[in-house]
Amino acid sequence: MKMVLTGPKRLEVQESGDFENSPAGYALVRVLCCAICRTDAKMWSEGHRDLVLPRVPGHEMVVVDDWQRRYVVWPGDSCGNCRFCVAGRENLCEVMQITGFHRDGGFADRVIVPQTSLLPIPETMSVVTACLAEPLGCVLHALEIGHISSSDRVLVYGGGTLGLLTALAAKTAGARPVVIEKNPKKIKIADGFLKKTEIVCLQETSENDFDLVVNACPDETAFQKGLAKVDKGGRFLFFSGLAKNRMIETGLIDLVHYREITLSGAYGLTRENMRRAVYFMESHQDAVKYLIEAVVPPERAPRLMPRVLAGGGFKYVLDFTGSFVNTE
Amino acid sequence: MKMVLTGPKRLEVQESGDFENSPAGYALVRVLCCAICRTDAKMWSEGHRDLVLPRVPGHEMVVVDDWQRRYVVWPGDSCGNCRFCVAGRENLCEVMQITGFHRDGGFADRVIVPQTSLLPIPETMSVVTACLAEPLGCVLHALEIGHISSSDRVLVYGGGTLGLLTALAAKTAGARPVVIEKNPKKIKIADGFLKKTEIVCLQETSENDFDLVVNACPDETAFQKGLAKVDKGGRFLFFSGLAKNRMIETGLIDLVHYREITLSGAYGLTRENMRRAVYFMESHQDAVKYLIEAVVPPERAPRLMPRVLAGGGFKYVLDFTGSFVNTE
Repeated sequence: MKMVLTGPKRLEVQESGDFENSPAGYALVRVLCCAICRTDAKMWSEGHRDLVLPRVPGHEMVVVDDWQRRYVVWPGDSCGNCRFCVAGRENLCEVMQITGFHRDGGFADRVIVPQTSLLPIPETMSVVTACLAEPLGCVLHALEIGHISSSDRVLVYGGGTLGLLTALAAKTAGARPVVIEKNPKKIKIADGFLKKTEIVCLQETSENDFDLVVNACPDETAFQKGLAKVDKGGRFLFFSGLAKNRMIETGLIDLVHYREITLSGAYGLTRENMRRAVYFMESHQDAVKYLIEAVVPPERAPRLMPRVLAGGGFKYVLDFTGSFVNTE
Repeated sequence: MKMVLTGPKRLEVQESGDFENSPAGYALVRVLCCAICRTDAKMWSEGHRDLVLPRVPGHEMVVVDDWQRRYVVWPGDSCGNCRFCVAGRENLCEVMQITGFHRDGGFADRVIVPQTSLLPIPETMSVVTACLAEPLGCVLHALEIGHISSSDRVLVYGGGTLGLLTALAAKTAGARPVVIEKNPKKIKIADGFLKKTEIVCLQETSENDFDLVVNACPDETAFQKGLAKVDKGGRFLFFSGLAKNRMIETGLIDLVHYREITLSGAYGLTRENMRRAVYFMESHQDAVKYLIEAVVPPERAPRLMPRVLAGGGFKYVLDFTGSFVNTE
């Protein structure tokens, strides 16, 4: 079975049917679990100019091959030859194809993916938490772009999955992170994670002069507050795209000039980021498991989309085997 | 004599009077020439929240001491002890005092400046062009922040003094600069400089994907156009503050995120930047002299302010000796 996006807010259950032989360099693998990303919910709600329907979404998956080897899947398919790929910035590849976007993804019991995008996971690793290797890889990529250092005081806006993973990775790098989440309900549901990791999450802070500020939410108000809280000579990591059609005043943008801030954009992840995420995840499973809201049958995906879009909770994971639901 | 800013748009000629003994670490020196900066004109027009009147403006000066040694003056007075000074970022000093702003500046026949801010100039150097060492130092500082490299295709918005100096410094670093100036009259008066330096200045370009884009003008439209012309993974050097109270749409700011652009703010200059500017200037005097619009008696400063504010021409230099007017 597969979940197919056939039109705006129409995500339908269909039979997988027969797969053609996968082309050279690609593998047909079985999907164990696939998490729902907010991007999936945005595609469901608004579409995207490059998205051609029908399409099977999903790019945060754990798969298994015919020899029972388990993998996470780097969602990119890069050319390896363009100036970005050669420079090690394959996430910017000139002809990038993304699984679950340019081609069918992991909201299905089977998927065809590039063989070189299959990244093995250790046997000790939970399949469900491994679904977070992709967002965590994005976090590691972003912190690399933001030149995280062990002396950094870090402020993260957004206490969702990405914000909390950012704080965890920053803390693991030796930095001192604080997370700002304006919704007290979200802080409450993060309780298990926060206790386990000893990370502080507040609704607001009066502190200033952070070495590194990260926006892990699309709220343009958080973006503006964050800019004002960067130390002179400090860094702002532009990790989440902003809500559309909002206006920002030049006086605010000018802070970057007058305070010699470095504002760095981070988008996506490389294979290497995802490889590192797998190993990071392995030693942080006990904390990361709190970021799984629920493991559910795939058929529940359509009903979950509005909730994922609203960003009220953590990760929903679709289970295509029936064996993980409620077990982790 | 001195030119004193006594109120909004009031710049008056006054007698210098007696100077108190300069405090330890400071020197009383004679001013030979002082150029008018657009910041001086803005202070004249709008004031500034930290500016206490009356004040003698001017921070782009060449001075001479009692032993006839000539110097340019780094306009900063930094503490040397704060975290920024110790890190070599003295332009961000926590208790920075700026000559011509926090204390009286170079629109006078005499001025008191920190002894450590006096930077000697070679005997072969023109006093008039040496007045440009300060803006050129800002340019060198900015290009350092923007990680200029010899392989860079560089796009500079703004064909004024700073924009053209930026292009010249970028070209000298081995990069390939193009300057965009929307005012055809300004391109015309830059003719001598452009021919001498073989730098291209256009009203617009259809080219894209520049490695480094620099805004050397406060126009927020240029800022937005420039952002859209940065290559994926490229750099935007935020060199000029923007016009106030203008709005920029989040979709435009998002380019920094989606294209992994690094937007770096550059503000002011260090002593070392200014030292390097002196030597750079020495070997480029033949080109830089074209950026001197006129050498004039100080009394003409009030009438020139509206023109400097409008940014229509190049540099006006006030001559406090009477010996440089019309001679260079």
